[in-house]
Amino acid sequence: MAPRALDYESLNENVKKVQYAVRGELYLRASELQKEGKKIIFTNVGNPHALGQKPLTFPRQVVALCQAPFLLDDPNVGLLFPADAIAKAKHYLALTTGGLGAYSDSRGMPGVRKEVADFIERRDGYPSDPELIFLTDGASKGVMQILNTIIRGESDGVLVPVPQYPLYSAAISLFGGSLVPYYLEETENWGLDVNNLRQSVAQARYKGITVKAMVIINPGNPTGQCLSESNLREILRFCYQENLALLGDEVYQQNIYQDERPFISARKVMMGMGPPISKEVQLVSFHTVSKGYWGECGQRGGYFEMTNIPPKTVDEIYKVASVSLSPNVPAQIFMGLMVNPLKPGDISYEQFIRESKGVLESLRRRARMMTDGFNSCKNVICNFTEGAMYSFPQIKLPPKAIEAAKRAGKVPDVFYCLKLLEATGISTVPGSGFGQKDGVFHLRTTILPAEEEMPEIMDSFKKFNNEFMEQYDDRSGYSRM
Amino acid sequence: MAPRALDYESLNENVKKVQYAVRGELYLRASELQKEGKKIIFTNVGNPHALGQKPLTFPRQVVALCQAPFLLDDPNVGLLFPADAIAKAKHYLALTTGGLGAYSDSRGMPGVRKEVADFIERRDGYPSDPELIFLTDGASKGVMQILNTIIRGESDGVLVPVPQYPLYSAAISLFGGSLVPYYLEETENWGLDVNNLRQSVAQARYKGITVKAMVIINPGNPTGQCLSESNLREILRFCYQENLALLGDEVYQQNIYQDERPFISARKVMMGMGPPISKEVQLVSFHTVSKGYWGECGQRGGYFEMTNIPPKTVDEIYKVASVSLSPNVPAQIFMGLMVNPLKPGDISYEQFIRESKGVLESLRRRARMMTDGFNSCKNVICNFTEGAMYSFPQIKLPPKAIEAAKRAGKVPDVFYCLKLLEATGISTVPGSGFGQKDGVFHLRTTILPAEEEMPEIMDSFKKFNNEFMEQYDDRSGYSRM
Ligand SMILES: Cc1ncc(COP(=O)(O)O)c(C=O)c1O
Ligand SMILES: Cc1ncc(COP(=O)(O)O)c(C=O)c1O
Repeated sequence: MAPRALDYESLNENVKKVQYAVRGELYLRASELQKEGKKIIFTNVGNPHALGQKPLTFPRQVVALCQAPFLLDDPNVGLLFPADAIAKAKHYLALTTGGLGAYSDSRGMPGVRKEVADFIERRDGYPSDPELIFLTDGASKGVMQILNTIIRGESDGVLVPVPQYPLYSAAISLFGGSLVPYYLEETENWGLDVNNLRQSVAQARYKGITVKAMVIINPGNPTGQCLSESNLREILRFCYQENLALLGDEVYQQNIYQDERPFISARKVMMGMGPPISKEVQLVSFHTVSKGYWGECGQRGGYFEMTNIPPKTVDEIYKVASVSLSPNVPAQIFMGLMVNPLKPGDISYEQFIRESKGVLESLRRRARMMTDGFNSCKNVICNFTEGAMYSFPQIKLPPKAIEAAKRAGKVPDVFYCLKLLEATGISTVPGSGFGQKDGVFHLRTTILPAEEEMPEIMDSFKKFNNEFMEQYDDRSGYSRM
Repeated sequence: MAPRALDYESLNENVKKVQYAVRGELYLRASELQKEGKKIIFTNVGNPHALGQKPLTFPRQVVALCQAPFLLDDPNVGLLFPADAIAKAKHYLALTTGGLGAYSDSRGMPGVRKEVADFIERRDGYPSDPELIFLTDGASKGVMQILNTIIRGESDGVLVPVPQYPLYSAAISLFGGSLVPYYLEETENWGLDVNNLRQSVAQARYKGITVKAMVIINPGNPTGQCLSESNLREILRFCYQENLALLGDEVYQQNIYQDERPFISARKVMMGMGPPISKEVQLVSFHTVSKGYWGECGQRGGYFEMTNIPPKTVDEIYKVASVSLSPNVPAQIFMGLMVNPLKPGDISYEQFIRESKGVLESLRRRARMMTDGFNSCKNVICNFTEGAMYSFPQIKLPPKAIEAAKRAGKVPDVFYCLKLLEATGISTVPGSGFGQKDGVFHLRTTILPAEEEMPEIMDSFKKFNNEFMEQYDDRSGYSRM
């Protein structure tokens, strides 16, 4: 019989080509083990609430009131909600066109897009146009929409850092384009060398690829580095020279764990460089409510801001956004609250600051604990997590371990991570899921497990790693596993 | 200078080809007029809350509590929330992996998918497997994902009814496939004739197109018809014979305004037909929280259920869903509440029934008022809205009006709808946005304006239409516009 439309043989080849390790083999095995009753520490995804981080109280109060607007008429509402939450809920409900149950404009509510523009202006010191800001169901959807707009086919290339967050490689495969890798330098604290970029572009062009855009992730995932202003300037100059659009994934802009390199947006640097760069380079910047001290991943709220994108293109992006009608409205309100936070003097201000500082300071301590923990392990070296939510240690696998992996039909770091999972319940993602240089192996873990559990987790990692390294030690004559 | 990556000339051609009239020229003009202070009645999108429909109280209470779980520990919670809402909130929070702020599994929460499966089993009388149910950010996203999985390129065709909801034409363009139209018969109450289908498929094959799937919208948008069981049987037999997957858009299954043809799902009919059809035809069915008496469009909650789809394909669909991490979690809870509603005896049951009945009965009356109103107008004929949320009258435009439209550079029905908008503030969608036979013109309006405003709206339509028809009357010697 002929294969049916939804039999594997008949599917869109681009769909089949997509790789997505964050929820790949390791995650599936971890889910199975969890079903069997084993305690799993899910550090495969930056999902803070799943590991016990509490949501900020104030925004949740506001959105709860927006979901239940009839409470606003209840004489008892003040017993459960502070006055500033009530006022904010009224503010946001007035921005909707029928509450949370009505589709908004496909770009998101004009009122919230205005608040985002004001935030960007305060942050960067340059005005921002709400008409060039689109709200999305998480940053992922925005990234996918922009890549879909750019990529015409196989011969269109997008520069993506390696290692990278696999959203990029996956979306490029799905839309049938070509990923053009540029390597981050592990020995330079995962810094970016513009000479590498030049080489990558030259190689791609040699293969007939039109390189159309460059992705930066700042702070980096999985690598955790923060780009310096001078590095960003070089990148922008490079994009200008090579006629590349720049996609700036800045979802971790609140997650900074050192003071030397505070977050600076690609847009601010670009505007500061003046013409022609500030007028010519096409930039799309992405943000989200999923990260920072919010960690509201499940709400699916994000935005992208476009700079130097012509109106006809904006219209096209608007049209395609309209096909799925509207980003979810509750998350638009989270976005409004995030970019327009409480001010000193507001009733809930103190609590808000206490909660948000608490999250960030603890993340900072955990970043330190993890890096130090990994660096104390045999055959493991790890750059400090300057920002974002991940630690990305290099695991120097002995030849015997690599052979054992081959025998088991596994990529070596997958082999290592699976053993780690079985032994400790720690669910990580192998470095191969993000890309890495040949013969070099990593794993990615989030820094999100609860602070008080961190010492135990690092101890259990260390114990596993030591045993693993001993077992596959070249000097020992045997292999137990 | 060479065009930049995001200049119009450089964009993905498939993006440019997308047409999406629901938020097209008419909507943009209506938005402008609204900004200028004119009162606009937005009947371009099925967006009930935007036109004043109130959300059901109980689900909103539950989701508000899930957003603010700290309220569950507040001794005053009982003053604002009934006990059954509190219990349900606890139930759904226990199904999450960290509350509403944590990404769920990319298919949606297992607990809610189980509730969906139970609902389908109760509705259809055949068991349903939660592993084959994926929750989505609205039905739109599910439809797009499935079409993206099916379509490999231009020579893959999908049968789509004409007139159709333009999500289908838009998504097929975006993914680079070919739309294969089959016409619904206006004079047969928008019924579907399998002989037309056969012809459409034959014509497409003649052009070298592999027809892979067929879309049905039941109840119909924009056409409002309900498919009979025997019609569904014919369709399934046809899909089996022609080796087509069937995509069943059943988002309006609660919106039924007559008693002769209650909703019956494609899946129920298929299972009832027994093998080989029940075992062979690949079916994907779509549902949403946006429609019915819920109308929770802004929450973006939906699901699709797959039947006879092999596990390897399900894995591929899961993988691609994972790239955007997770559907929004609050809407997953709305979906759970929708498929698992209150039962007699629950504290909030009476109110829930009163509210939901109120919405449905009023919609039924409004469907009647609109059909009758249109049919009382000169040169307008309109089938009764058996289901869904739309009225789709045919407007018999006199030759002079068609000439005037040509002179104005407009498609005739766009011309008519723009004039209607300017004269009355009623924002409709021209029939050309949905597809129609050559030389025949329609407009689509929702039946959603508030019941008490309906007589005035229909009067103002009638007045406009009469003047329009008089002005362009072939027998009158002049044209004033
Ligand atoms: C670098 C990066 N970009 C984008 C995202 C997507 O976030 P969301 O879709 O939740 O906004 C993530 C999530 O982990 C990420 O790490
Ligand atoms: C026929 C049909 N399918 C799907 C949808 C999409 O609904 P949603 O994405 O809000 O679930 C609509 C919305 O109007 C529709 O009319």
